[in-house]
Amino acid sequence: VNGVRLGTAAAGIRYQNRDDLVLFDICEGATVAGVFTRNAFRAAPVQVAMRNLSATSPRYLMINSGNANAGTGQAGHDNCLASTQLLADAAGCDAQQVLPFSTGVIGEPLPLAAFTTGIPLAIGSLAADNWLTAARAIMTTDTVPKLVSKQVRIDGKLVTFTGMAKGAGMIRPDMATMLAFIATDAGVSTSALQAMLASAADQSFNRITVDGDTSTNDACILIATGRGELHVPDTDQQTLQALQAEVNALCTELAQAVIRDAEGITKFMTIDVQQGASEAECLQVAYTVALSPLVKTAFFASDPNWGRILAAVGRSGLPELDVSAISIYLGATCIASAGGRSPDYTEQQGQQVMQQDEITVTIKLGRGDARASVWTSDLSHDYVRINAEYRT
Amino acid sequence: VNGVRLGTAAAGIRYQNRDDLVLFDICEGATVAGVFTRNAFRAAPVQVAMRNLSATSPRYLMINSGNANAGTGQAGHDNCLASTQLLADAAGCDAQQVLPFSTGVIGEPLPLAAFTTGIPLAIGSLAADNWLTAARAIMTTDTVPKLVSKQVRIDGKLVTFTGMAKGAGMIRPDMATMLAFIATDAGVSTSALQAMLASAADQSFNRITVDGDTSTNDACILIATGRGELHVPDTDQQTLQALQAEVNALCTELAQAVIRDAEGITKFMTIDVQQGASEAECLQVAYTVALSPLVKTAFFASDPNWGRILAAVGRSGLPELDVSAISIYLGATCIASAGGRSPDYTEQQGQQVMQQDEITVTIKLGRGDARASVWTSDLSHDYVRINAEYRT
Repeated sequence: VNGVRLGTAAAGIRYQNRDDLVLFDICEGATVAGVFTRNAFRAAPVQVAMRNLSATSPRYLMINSGNANAGTGQAGHDNCLASTQLLADAAGCDAQQVLPFSTGVIGEPLPLAAFTTGIPLAIGSLAADNWLTAARAIMTTDTVPKLVSKQVRIDGKLVTFTGMAKGAGMIRPDMATMLAFIATDAGVSTSALQAMLASAADQSFNRITVDGDTSTNDACILIATGRGELHVPDTDQQTLQALQAEVNALCTELAQAVIRDAEGITKFMTIDVQQGASEAECLQVAYTVALSPLVKTAFFASDPNWGRILAAVGRSGLPELDVSAISIYLGATCIASAGGRSPDYTEQQGQQVMQQDEITVTIKLGRGDARASVWTSDLSHDYVRINAEYRT
Repeated sequence: VNGVRLGTAAAGIRYQNRDDLVLFDICEGATVAGVFTRNAFRAAPVQVAMRNLSATSPRYLMINSGNANAGTGQAGHDNCLASTQLLADAAGCDAQQVLPFSTGVIGEPLPLAAFTTGIPLAIGSLAADNWLTAARAIMTTDTVPKLVSKQVRIDGKLVTFTGMAKGAGMIRPDMATMLAFIATDAGVSTSALQAMLASAADQSFNRITVDGDTSTNDACILIATGRGELHVPDTDQQTLQALQAEVNALCTELAQAVIRDAEGITKFMTIDVQQGASEAECLQVAYTVALSPLVKTAFFASDPNWGRILAAVGRSGLPELDVSAISIYLGATCIASAGGRSPDYTEQQGQQVMQQDEITVTIKLGRGDARASVWTSDLSHDYVRINAEYRT
């Protein structure tokens, strides 16, 4: 993306012999939007990034893995400010123009010395084609880097989008997921860009869950450099909508990539709730099913255990729910209707669907026209192993 | 308990060579109270039991394991009614005086032939000292029968209480847990007994969770036979309160016994939330922590990972939560305060607490005087194995 350069360094924050520090150098005149976790225990870097984003035009994103600088109290806040000052001194900008992000262990002091070492190295490596290296450097329990890039034409003009995300556990984003960074060379005002990101995050990162645990460090940033062909005035709603659709698609792809790399995943599950009275109640049902340990272990076992899905729908708390109007599908197969097993359903059909790696559960509530989907993973032995072994 | 006789039979409902049918024969003049699941997909027996309880003075409870008769639609309802009629014919009472309960696989037709075989055998075995045999007969994934009995003196009069429960998974009772049956020889009016049970269940069975999944078949029944020394008129509030305290204690012991036998449990966890603005918000925080897969896997790993507890508190959704006022204790050790790790805390202290089988997490919110606790289990490899292998 013209206008964005990335640099990385092995700063030794926690890991040895791997990159753990990433810089985004953002051109002058770019606009930047961000959405952040709603967890009340927001990490120090999240608080600083939110404040700096609202006060200035950011010139740098600085991301470290290996240490979340969360649950670190006043000392963590001071360390975070000191780290942004280190970069500001080396890069010749104001410390407020640095947005800091951290991911890794909660509650450990941020090692400032590693930043002193790493920042000059990362500045020295700044380049436009460093996205994959950067996507690798922010990984923690991730097994693959998550990176999406595309070029499309809008109003006949070429627009480039590139975005990366990290996250595999503690995933139930509320406003944004655990670190996603997206850039486009389109030109968009800050206010339009912020609205665009909030809307896109709501349809993508806010529709995924691994374990229901919202991170203290969630953040998603969208950069519009204005160095490409397309420049969109705020008044051009049609072009803004075309851009919004592309941002939505990219965020959805990244969000799904987080789920595909979920800790211990063996099955990618889409919970698609239809015929609800409102989108909110569709999401309520979808999340109840997506978070149910019993549904998730059944999928791990490739067991078409529709009774557990039905029980989860039943406890989702919808007022005046008429269970006889509900039907539930596994893939294209209707498994439950009229409060019980579907008359034509056979166990064999269910087991056939369960052989697939990606499975959609469709729940038709029969009480309206609203619809919403969430994406989630199953609950496997490996999820327990990974989270018993790893110190978040 | 004078006035209650129990009978069991190996009816062959699903299991071979083990008891799976239980009858409670309740004396004339006894009062009976019940609380039932709020899951919208209430099983047929729950619906019938609720209706019969409000219409008549029950003379029999009939409980089968191996088949939940849930998600079975109209046919399941018809089967349930037919099974109560079979018992009514054999016992010489009205079918409405039978309260049916089922636990086991969801969505399979209830095999009526097994009831035809089993009911006469169960009637033939009716005896006052059959509680342990009955507690064993209603087990599914339970590994131990859960039975509590005690005798106390209230107003100088001897009162006997005996209760049993089953349940190890799909446990997040909402009004009651998956099948608990309690009897006392005290005499109490139906209305006072119902109020007593609702209050006791709210403080006990409604304070436990294994996996957040509320069963379709939850039910808890309290029988007062009036065949003992103590008879309490509705106007004697003081004695009713003394009785209430005993029922609360018994229900709490049974509820905790369910958690001690939770699927895959290695640690019994008490989440005690104090200094809340209301009991409701204390419960909201307690359940968020108790349901967090990350907290539960950390406890499985004996890892004093207070960052995960803090993150769960932070996402629990309390409005205007001041994280600097919160302190978190593992056992008696303060692990977090002022938004970060407690200054005096050492990892060694945390690991010492983690060696225990029963651990209390205390969360002081610093915003009021309310308090509430929930009890839960950790998330282990065995939880996943049991639920991947077992068809609910």
